[in-house]
Amino acid sequence: MKRKVAVVITARPSYSRIKTALYAIKNHPELELQIIVAASALLERYGSAVNYIEQDGFEIAARVFNVLEGENLTAAAKTTGIGILELSTVFDNLKPDVVVTIADRFETMATAISAAYMNIPLVHIQGGEVTGNIDEKVRHAITKLADYHFVASKDAYERVLKLGESPESVFNTGCPSIDLAQMVLDEPSLDFDPYQKYGGVGFSPDLSKGYLVVMQHPVTTEYTQSRNHINETLQAVNGIDLPVLWFWPNVDAGADGTSSGIRAFREKNKPEQIHFFKNMEGRDFLKVLLASKCLIGNSSVGIRECSFLGVPVINIGTRQNKRERGHNIIDVGYDRQEIAKAIDFWLSNPRPAQSHVYGGGRAGEEIAQLLSKVELKFSKTISY
Amino acid sequence: MKRKVAVVITARPSYSRIKTALYAIKNHPELELQIIVAASALLERYGSAVNYIEQDGFEIAARVFNVLEGENLTAAAKTTGIGILELSTVFDNLKPDVVVTIADRFETMATAISAAYMNIPLVHIQGGEVTGNIDEKVRHAITKLADYHFVASKDAYERVLKLGESPESVFNTGCPSIDLAQMVLDEPSLDFDPYQKYGGVGFSPDLSKGYLVVMQHPVTTEYTQSRNHINETLQAVNGIDLPVLWFWPNVDAGADGTSSGIRAFREKNKPEQIHFFKNMEGRDFLKVLLASKCLIGNSSVGIRECSFLGVPVINIGTRQNKRERGHNIIDVGYDRQEIAKAIDFWLSNPRPAQSHVYGGGRAGEEIAQLLSKVELKFSKTISY
Amino acid sequence: MKRKVAVVITARPSYSRIKTALYAIKNHPELELQIIVAASALLERYGSAVNYIEQDGFEIAARVFNVLEGENLTAAAKTTGIGILELSTVFDNLKPDVVVTIADRFETMATAISAAYMNIPLVHIQGGEVTGNIDEKVRHAITKLADYHFVASKDAYERVLKLGESPESVFNTGCPSIDLAQMVLDEPSLDFDPYQKYGGVGFSPDLSKGYLVVMQHPVTTEYTQSRNHINETLQAVNGIDLPVLWFWPNVDAGADGTSSGIRAFREKNKPEQIHFFKNMEGRDFLKVLLASKCLIGNSSVGIRECSFLGVPVINIGTRQNKRERGHNIIDVGYDRQEIAKAIDFWLSNPRPAQSHVYGGGRAGEEIAQLLSKVELKFSKTISY
Amino acid sequence: MKRKVAVVITARPSYSRIKTALYAIKNHPELELQIIVAASALLERYGSAVNYIEQDGFEIAARVFNVLEGENLTAAAKTTGIGILELSTVFDNLKPDVVVTIADRFETMATAISAAYMNIPLVHIQGGEVTGNIDEKVRHAITKLADYHFVASKDAYERVLKLGESPESVFNTGCPSIDLAQMVLDEPSLDFDPYQKYGGVGFSPDLSKGYLVVMQHPVTTEYTQSRNHINETLQAVNGIDLPVLWFWPNVDAGADGTSSGIRAFREKNKPEQIHFFKNMEGRDFLKVLLASKCLIGNSSVGIRECSFLGVPVINIGTRQNKRERGHNIIDVGYDRQEIAKAIDFWLSNPRPAQSHVYGGGRAGEEIAQLLSKVELKFSKTISY
Repeated sequence: MKRKVAVVITARPSYSRIKTALYAIKNHPELELQIIVAASALLERYGSAVNYIEQDGFEIAARVFNVLEGENLTAAAKTTGIGILELSTVFDNLKPDVVVTIADRFETMATAISAAYMNIPLVHIQGGEVTGNIDEKVRHAITKLADYHFVASKDAYERVLKLGESPESVFNTGCPSIDLAQMVLDEPSLDFDPYQKYGGVGFSPDLSKGYLVVMQHPVTTEYTQSRNHINETLQAVNGIDLPVLWFWPNVDAGADGTSSGIRAFREKNKPEQIHFFKNMEGRDFLKVLLASKCLIGNSSVGIRECSFLGVPVINIGTRQNKRERGHNIIDVGYDRQEIAKAIDFWLSNPRPAQSHVYGGGRAGEEIAQLLSKVELKFSKTISY
Repeated sequence: MKRKVAVVITARPSYSRIKTALYAIKNHPELELQIIVAASALLERYGSAVNYIEQDGFEIAARVFNVLEGENLTAAAKTTGIGILELSTVFDNLKPDVVVTIADRFETMATAISAAYMNIPLVHIQGGEVTGNIDEKVRHAITKLADYHFVASKDAYERVLKLGESPESVFNTGCPSIDLAQMVLDEPSLDFDPYQKYGGVGFSPDLSKGYLVVMQHPVTTEYTQSRNHINETLQAVNGIDLPVLWFWPNVDAGADGTSSGIRAFREKNKPEQIHFFKNMEGRDFLKVLLASKCLIGNSSVGIRECSFLGVPVINIGTRQNKRERGHNIIDVGYDRQEIAKAIDFWLSNPRPAQSHVYGGGRAGEEIAQLLSKVELKFSKTISY
Repeated sequence: MKRKVAVVITARPSYSRIKTALYAIKNHPELELQIIVAASALLERYGSAVNYIEQDGFEIAARVFNVLEGENLTAAAKTTGIGILELSTVFDNLKPDVVVTIADRFETMATAISAAYMNIPLVHIQGGEVTGNIDEKVRHAITKLADYHFVASKDAYERVLKLGESPESVFNTGCPSIDLAQMVLDEPSLDFDPYQKYGGVGFSPDLSKGYLVVMQHPVTTEYTQSRNHINETLQAVNGIDLPVLWFWPNVDAGADGTSSGIRAFREKNKPEQIHFFKNMEGRDFLKVLLASKCLIGNSSVGIRECSFLGVPVINIGTRQNKRERGHNIIDVGYDRQEIAKAIDFWLSNPRPAQSHVYGGGRAGEEIAQLLSKVELKFSKTISY
Repeated sequence: MKRKVAVVITARPSYSRIKTALYAIKNHPELELQIIVAASALLERYGSAVNYIEQDGFEIAARVFNVLEGENLTAAAKTTGIGILELSTVFDNLKPDVVVTIADRFETMATAISAAYMNIPLVHIQGGEVTGNIDEKVRHAITKLADYHFVASKDAYERVLKLGESPESVFNTGCPSIDLAQMVLDEPSLDFDPYQKYGGVGFSPDLSKGYLVVMQHPVTTEYTQSRNHINETLQAVNGIDLPVLWFWPNVDAGADGTSSGIRAFREKNKPEQIHFFKNMEGRDFLKVLLASKCLIGNSSVGIRECSFLGVPVINIGTRQNKRERGHNIIDVGYDRQEIAKAIDFWLSNPRPAQSHVYGGGRAGEEIAQLLSKVELKFSKTISY
């Protein structure tokens, strides 16, 4: 009998990150994949990841709407509570042999708690990293709930061990997002028209002379300031004479500040150089990044895929604070001048070298292989 | 303005353990106590801790019924989900400056997540201990969510540091349950009739020649076996010619197995030496223990208060597996013969020496003092 | 393509009542049955109806644990809220073409609201009856949410029309529980030993000289009095020199009063003539009733099946207050003397005539037939 | 001791409608007002009614975030489930003597069920009306759950009686929204600049020559079409040479279609004559209506306040289908030509006469008076 592997996907970026692992699980002869789509991955205003999942040929075992409105911290907590309530029922009905939870978004805690409390072996992908905000509380707490840890870098591997996990439960698989980056490197050409394929709003400046990409999420511990933060970035890129492809933030407390900041800026400035996208299929997004002058914002894509691709990045603020990184990062504050200066630097300097800090491009297959082999245990004790 | 300290109490034993700290907070000139009573602490069949809390003179700021029926693992997870959903609303309305969560029962995770996600500084009492079951996952995960750690022993202190918490956030206050034990040592006489004061069911054997006490909880990772486990204990004490005061288990997956095991045994054997209590006020319970020949079961009271009081304990099974202990413990398996043999040992040997491994009896005041002094922060990063 | 018919079963008695309709739906060539089991139908202490459903050969499409502990009115409301939250997800995943809800227990409102709000045509079985307590609020409110009404009697039919429903949406199918009663009449012999087949607790008095049956539920609007109520019945039957088969009440606010009343009585009186059952398969229960001297309590079985079977009934209190009835009912208050007097009456008088007020025994098939034919609409307006 | 009256407000328009009653309750010597704010009344993108409530001098007893994202029908059901779960806790803690629920929005059912199930007397304001969509199911179901009915018109009064409610529980108070309209008639001048006072987005056309007002909500049973519906209205008003003040729709399944329809239209047409408001304080809104040429859309304000004020209305589609109305209404379909023709009619004909069908302007005080006098009962039976 095949092992039933439930993977809970709660957001567009998590899906992109894990996609190659999902294919590998689906194709593994000893595994049966159960995809559960929940939270913002179901919502139109965060890019309906669920549609991409289906278009990619995956079957969806269950859908769980659990995002509570409010875009404040109370709502984030309650979203997690509803997630637990409902994922428990889903697990009770699907009866997976193992549950996979991805990374550190607040609502992934729901997956972790439901599985851990129901004595279902829990695999955590991308634990052990350091960032320095609420994500970090979530990430390390999930490490303490998980039975297996498939980490993305050597630093993360060491850190999970220090957290008291036993060596036989920790595996450095690299990050599956790098698998996709490897495929993009194999076929790097920007073979589609982003405006045509993905719509979006705003002007459609000519991209042939190069362009910038922006993706900036609100930071939850500072959510009242998110409108100011986004405004600094808007002002910075508005002053550069290059087209800008701007990607809408994902669901987080504070998204309202970010969103309303963007809307107010557009209303007032009608920026002719900026086009706004809600979302983009992962491979296409990497191609857009690879062809860009640089990425600006605080997305983990800058730290991970861009380091592997050698794309220059201007990383703003504290969100990726302490994450391990390649040579492609310039860190700046929420300050239009700092941001503008860093853009100038990348426009006038050679691209950075590629880095393998987050793995070498075969993480998906390694994850599937491990899922088929590890002992199905759900009990552990701290190693010290 | 006083600091508002919300303490969430979800079970009878947690209340007993924390009571002296609650008094100290209530009486502290710079603190305002907000007691929130939830989960099994509100339910009659787990001893209605809420009634004791009120009788002790505390005001209750909010009540939250969140125990989902089922007494299986799905219900435990869902209870936690509902807890988050509702505690978030309670915190949003009460606006505490700091939230206190106690120990490691599954539903305490709800308190931790609500507070952590809402950026309210979170204090965890009694983290850092080791036991080796689901409690351990919960306990260490809460450590990773908490901003401050008031631990009960030196070992626990070291372990919380190893988990990556910064030294200025960890304090060894000792266990407040020991404060109560100290008061009992000051006035040790059994100055009430347990049958009269606490009712209960079963026969009422004469206690003047000595008696045994039993308190055995189901162990969640083995819940289908809980009926067998309890039966071994019942058979073991049934063979001893001494009265037995038996305390009903608290709410946990498997309680049904334990409860129905006890009911079936009573129905069949009509044991004339055993009296069953639902619950007992903390100080009275310690006096009953102090006057007993020994405690049998798997309650943490055996490890903690009994070590301080020098009461002999027969600790059954894995529940207190790796918890730090004094010289008063004999560990046995779920085996009537092992249990009976250990009872014989304690009946024929001198009582063990007292131990201060869980503190010296002033934890409550120290906790209140710390709550009034620590910086109100809710952001942290791992120390390695 | 077959019409997908979701039937939500939330309690043991609802399952018994609807069983023949479930078989007819399952066997209908144009229907696909989706059984969803929720609330007390999943819980051991209310007789685990789910086990009988499976033993009867039905497949279960989803299970939803949603009973909140407390056995008070707050818990009843919250149970309904959780039910809506989860049934919505279940409906969203199973995509039924029509949803069936049964009768008037508080938690059936969850089924009705989820379906009505999700624009799924809703069929209500057994609306239009009158009882005079919270059930009545629930029942008529569900009528106003439902698109079709399959009622059990002529009075109910008229009443649903008066409530403003259009005549083409109301059908008097009779009660499917009568179908089962018809089968029992076809093979009436008590061909099993109740003690052996169903266990239970208490003494096992000889049934060959006749016996009484008791089934008394707490009444929610009077729940603090439920302990007194049950005590009157216990005292009444204790004074009669006949065996008593006593059936445990179902989950309702106040069950605790009823349960603890029974427990206290047993503890004190050790009644040698009374045996207590948790539950019994429907057909066997009807055979037990048919062979009994009379039924005492407030169950709707007395009103419905017993009128068809011609079994004498002593109906206590307000629970069945105004329900249409045959000639087999004596109504009494919560008063041991009234109850005892009514028992005497039935012991010394001939059995009442059979009545067809709740239909003639083919309701199940008619329900299935209607489900396959009615227009799938979910919009309506009041008829006046 | 004062009677504690809990009023649950879940949306901006409900607050406007009930405001004079809230003042009257607050000022009544025998009543204590407990305002509970929930659902979209807390959310910024639906106009943060909560801020107006506080600015108007009311104290808020509890806030409950319960809107689940999705803007589909599943989310509406789940929002209601969460509402029940949380309002039950709120009622359990606030212990109101009577609960008031307003009108017929889907989430008001949560208030009704929590109160009815917890045996708290429930007053329903504005039952008995007819509209012909999901609102109608909700409205009449709440009538069947409520103990008292304070209706707004003679027709509604008759209908509630027909629904089987006893005459002593039904009172025709008129609609409290008319109280406010009466105050506006007393001081009718448009004494503020809407653009300056309420911001909003879009152009700011000169209003001195007259203007139109639009307020059009999505209709839940047709939510996939809501984008088309709104587009017809946008096209119709775009062709008229008059300024348009457009008010954003409230939270309902389908709001996304409506919102995105408006956004797409703005993006494409940059309509210079249209200004968009998120919300407006009730009295100001009535003044804006009174000074307008006509109101276009499907808001109940057109049926109620505008009939009293004698403001011409073009009522689109089925939402107010069968509601009782004055002479100020022209009903049209979702059709730009029909809408445009009706606008022409009102622009070239005299204003309609005022009507008192929804009361005479003292509803608020009458409601408070009734709340202080009615018997506190929570049990009823149908009258036929």
